[in-house]
Amino acid sequence: MSEIAKTPQTPYYAVIFTSERTDGDNQYAEMADEMVKLASVQPGFLGVESAREGVGITVSYWDSLEAIQKWKQNERHLVAQSKGISDWYLTYKTRVCKVERDYGFEKV
Amino acid sequence: MSEIAKTPQTPYYAVIFTSERTDGDNQYAEMADEMVKLASVQPGFLGVESAREGVGITVSYWDSLEAIQKWKQNERHLVAQSKGISDWYLTYKTRVCKVERDYGFEKV
Repeated sequence: MSEIAKTPQTPYYAVIFTSERTDGDNQYAEMADEMVKLASVQPGFLGVESAREGVGITVSYWDSLEAIQKWKQNERHLVAQSKGISDWYLTYKTRVCKVERDYGFEKV
Repeated sequence: MSEIAKTPQTPYYAVIFTSERTDGDNQYAEMADEMVKLASVQPGFLGVESAREGVGITVSYWDSLEAIQKWKQNERHLVAQSKGISDWYLTYKTRVCKVERDYGFEKV
């Protein structure tokens, strides 16, 4: 299950990926798992958070725009992106962001 | 149900709010609805996306940091923030971001 990502001090970068799925799994779950595992061993990866409830929101965190660009061009990720368009998504939006400030709370 | 937000051309701002809830509703759902309605009539509000699946992710979009700051200080929102800490959240993280680039896909 997804947890809150343990990110470092700002600034760092976030990619917000919001999507609506097509019907049926079509090997989506398997590839989604593979992509999370693969992303997490890429240089500059800082963490990921994910939830789906009607719309799906996945936020991945990175230490630089270069790391984001390299992940976008990863060979296996390109296959997933292509299957995303052909099979898995009705619509999606990707937003590349600079995280300028963050703060949190934890019950003790 | 949440949908993908119709945001304008970049740059604009995003607030990523990731949380883990306590058990029980404790009037959370009612206040969450109220906050989405109230946020959406604030100056500078551009849209909101939300999903909960274990972790909850709510991303709100704004036209400026000033708009985000004003919403944070909204009187009714301050009440919600206080109840969030006392009753509703085990932990949360708020990240204030500048959206530098975005792109999307829509099946036709």
